[in-house]
Amino acid sequence: MEQISKFKEMLMKQKAYGYVLNLAGWDSNTEAPRGAFARRAEMLGVISGELFELNTSEEYQEVVYGLFKKFNELDDITQREIKKAKKDLDKIIKIPKNEFVEYNKLINLSQLVWEDAKANNDFNAFKGNLEKIVAFTKKFVDYYKIDDHPYNVLLDGFEDGMSMKEYDEFFNTLKEDLVPFVKEVLNSGKVLNDAFITDFYPREKQKEFAEYLIDVLAFNRDNGLMKESVHPFTWNTHSTDVRFTTRYLEDFMFSSIFAAIHELGHATYEQQIDPKWDDTYLDGGTSMGIHESQSRFYENIIGRSLEFWEVHYPKLKEIFPEQLKNVSLDDFYRGVNKVEASFVRVEADELTYSLHIMIRYEIERMLFSDEVKVEDLPEIWNEKMVEYLGIEPSNDTEGVLQDVHWSVGMFGYFPTYALGSAYAAQFYYTMKKDLNIEEIVKANEIKTINNWLKEKIHQYGGSKTPKELLVEVTGEEFNPKYYIQLLKDKYGKLYL
Amino acid sequence: MEQISKFKEMLMKQKAYGYVLNLAGWDSNTEAPRGAFARRAEMLGVISGELFELNTSEEYQEVVYGLFKKFNELDDITQREIKKAKKDLDKIIKIPKNEFVEYNKLINLSQLVWEDAKANNDFNAFKGNLEKIVAFTKKFVDYYKIDDHPYNVLLDGFEDGMSMKEYDEFFNTLKEDLVPFVKEVLNSGKVLNDAFITDFYPREKQKEFAEYLIDVLAFNRDNGLMKESVHPFTWNTHSTDVRFTTRYLEDFMFSSIFAAIHELGHATYEQQIDPKWDDTYLDGGTSMGIHESQSRFYENIIGRSLEFWEVHYPKLKEIFPEQLKNVSLDDFYRGVNKVEASFVRVEADELTYSLHIMIRYEIERMLFSDEVKVEDLPEIWNEKMVEYLGIEPSNDTEGVLQDVHWSVGMFGYFPTYALGSAYAAQFYYTMKKDLNIEEIVKANEIKTINNWLKEKIHQYGGSKTPKELLVEVTGEEFNPKYYIQLLKDKYGKLYL
Repeated sequence: MEQISKFKEMLMKQKAYGYVLNLAGWDSNTEAPRGAFARRAEMLGVISGELFELNTSEEYQEVVYGLFKKFNELDDITQREIKKAKKDLDKIIKIPKNEFVEYNKLINLSQLVWEDAKANNDFNAFKGNLEKIVAFTKKFVDYYKIDDHPYNVLLDGFEDGMSMKEYDEFFNTLKEDLVPFVKEVLNSGKVLNDAFITDFYPREKQKEFAEYLIDVLAFNRDNGLMKESVHPFTWNTHSTDVRFTTRYLEDFMFSSIFAAIHELGHATYEQQIDPKWDDTYLDGGTSMGIHESQSRFYENIIGRSLEFWEVHYPKLKEIFPEQLKNVSLDDFYRGVNKVEASFVRVEADELTYSLHIMIRYEIERMLFSDEVKVEDLPEIWNEKMVEYLGIEPSNDTEGVLQDVHWSVGMFGYFPTYALGSAYAAQFYYTMKKDLNIEEIVKANEIKTINNWLKEKIHQYGGSKTPKELLVEVTGEEFNPKYYIQLLKDKYGKLYL
Repeated sequence: MEQISKFKEMLMKQKAYGYVLNLAGWDSNTEAPRGAFARRAEMLGVISGELFELNTSEEYQEVVYGLFKKFNELDDITQREIKKAKKDLDKIIKIPKNEFVEYNKLINLSQLVWEDAKANNDFNAFKGNLEKIVAFTKKFVDYYKIDDHPYNVLLDGFEDGMSMKEYDEFFNTLKEDLVPFVKEVLNSGKVLNDAFITDFYPREKQKEFAEYLIDVLAFNRDNGLMKESVHPFTWNTHSTDVRFTTRYLEDFMFSSIFAAIHELGHATYEQQIDPKWDDTYLDGGTSMGIHESQSRFYENIIGRSLEFWEVHYPKLKEIFPEQLKNVSLDDFYRGVNKVEASFVRVEADELTYSLHIMIRYEIERMLFSDEVKVEDLPEIWNEKMVEYLGIEPSNDTEGVLQDVHWSVGMFGYFPTYALGSAYAAQFYYTMKKDLNIEEIVKANEIKTINNWLKEKIHQYGGSKTPKELLVEVTGEEFNPKYYIQLLKDKYGKLYL
């Protein structure tokens, strides 16, 4: 008992450090001026160092390993906490503090370097930082002394229990079943009335519609907010402070709409987690894949459905009467689901999206198998774009430099995006058994869907693993057939 | 030497904790959703507690007191650092940690309570918190065991070397020389063409002009930003990240203009501090009074001058062509300097402003002399408003609840506002000897004024005391005659 309360006490301290670092991250990503970053890296380096001390202190090790030895005497929740805590501890204690601090400083600064490199289409300006980040990551994985392929260690870090074996299987299924279908769709010769997509939509007006969407999706404004950033994301520390961003491209309104709905999906998950997990090791969403399943569910399954736009297209037309004057609901719905080979992942359509992820997965897989070097990435990137999507980026800004992830050391994260999309489909076919989803969307009662997801998934926070959730909610293990079925049904009707 | 580097090392750690707490404060004041605050108080309570441990650790005491014993062997800068560090240490080590943490939680939450109370015109809803804050403050001052009146201890905390003796003298001079003059002005019967002041000025358009002012005042946008908040303020941690806020009242445009110029004054001070002080105990502006002298200098002496509006009024007219159609430059200038008895300090004109401060000073003086109770404040407030300004607030929102300061435990701060205004005048008459200020403002070359202030005041950060700065820059000690002279000259011409 004493050890448990000691564990809780130390955990609260760790959470407080994580909290302020998180808050600084939100600031860095949404408003901090450029001049802030050098000093910030110093200051946050100190705080990360302190957190590292807490996370690796002998006292903490004694408590966690001590409790792990008495595993069978612990209640179910404490067992889950200690299991997770031990898994993290096993890794972090292997890393020398000075390297940890140095790494954190590096990634704090690299995001800015990447932003500049992307703005100036200058991969070389970013290459040095990326090499350092990759080298650190490899060294850290090596320190862990886990008897597995380095990339498996990284993959498991973002999605409990996933390895190259499962992902290879998943992506191979996509290659076999989806890639030929995508080619069929791309070659269908279907002509859309879609000039409106790239019309001019003033920023402020887009913001007005994004604010409207917040209420449509029943987001709780007392416990969160929406802001703007270059790369949309959701930020959270606890269920009563959940924030997200979107971005406004004046010549591509869909960007703000679907980024907002996507992030609202993440945000709804976080807002609906039972606050009882806040003080435990099981707070927050359970994994990146499950998180992404929620954002994709709202973005694609709800947000790109005909029923959704039957209700909300009039509002959009009211905000943009000129731009949408000659655009029927059917045109708009087809525009929202327009399939095309494109360069930028975050703007990719629902159907080709996972091919963008496959490219990143394969590149990371090679990188951490020492089959390629950082300097080769631009070329490999472009080759794979040609292979899977039949198009070649004309510069690195729309190629290898497009994503923020690597600049902040997130390797092994990308595949959870495709996995999440597939989870979403599996959840969808289960939800259909309980709810008339189409009618609910048409009635603008999304709260009913939120409630279902809360009951089945959200409330549990990190207290169930992704695998447990899938089996408990859908009655079976992960099965990509639902994803392929959903895509073929929808896009077969639209294009073939 | 070893002790010095130990001191530096511990100082950096303290700075890092201060940094993240500061950042959280910025977030709390500019965007955090309401739901964030309960959890935030817990989390920041932990971090404040950790900082408290650092600030009071035996190791730190040994270093600071150890170095203080060798005071004469230290170089000038280290002497100044140790002197300041010891002064803070002497106080903080007297406070029990649990009380310190509890106090910090209390003030983190009280601001929200105050906001609600103000919004609902409900002093009773805030009274309990305020009583607790006052009780804590008294207890803390008592712990310090400084042989002085409690209010003197608080006053000195915000302005090194100031006590009731000096402030009484200052405010008595104002009472004798200024109050009769203010009455004369208020009774002059002068009629202004000032209906435009309360016309409707859309928020977005006001923001456009505030953005314009940022460039007029040569603020460095790479090292800072402007945002919006209920109570305008400047926030800073180091010269390359200086932020400030303004607020937009659509029926009172002057609020955003002069809040922006005022805060730009604070921000310019911070941006112009030599970064060499960042890693020392002498970072930031030297005192609240000197800080306020800079904001008041820009706001009143520059921002409310005829020359300033000769240059910038055309821009304002361009943004608000309808509202300012029939308003001449002379009308506008008189409007900007309109004197009236009003309720709200932050909107008060230059001439009556210090009377608002006097009221707060006298109330705090009584509160910390145990002559009044918190529950009596609304009544006393209203009585003093009648006494000095001849008007009585009709509710507590425009009375005792108007300022944020007490809700965050800042007692002894208010008088620095009046003191700063008087410092500003003293600096002004010195600057006039070197620069043709009127010509510079007319030529829109405010950078020249910034440079003068940088050279004489800003660059030194906290390395000189307010008294030193005054003597070195102006050649004499603080003398309120300049303030009175400036006000009488300006408002005599305008009204008498």
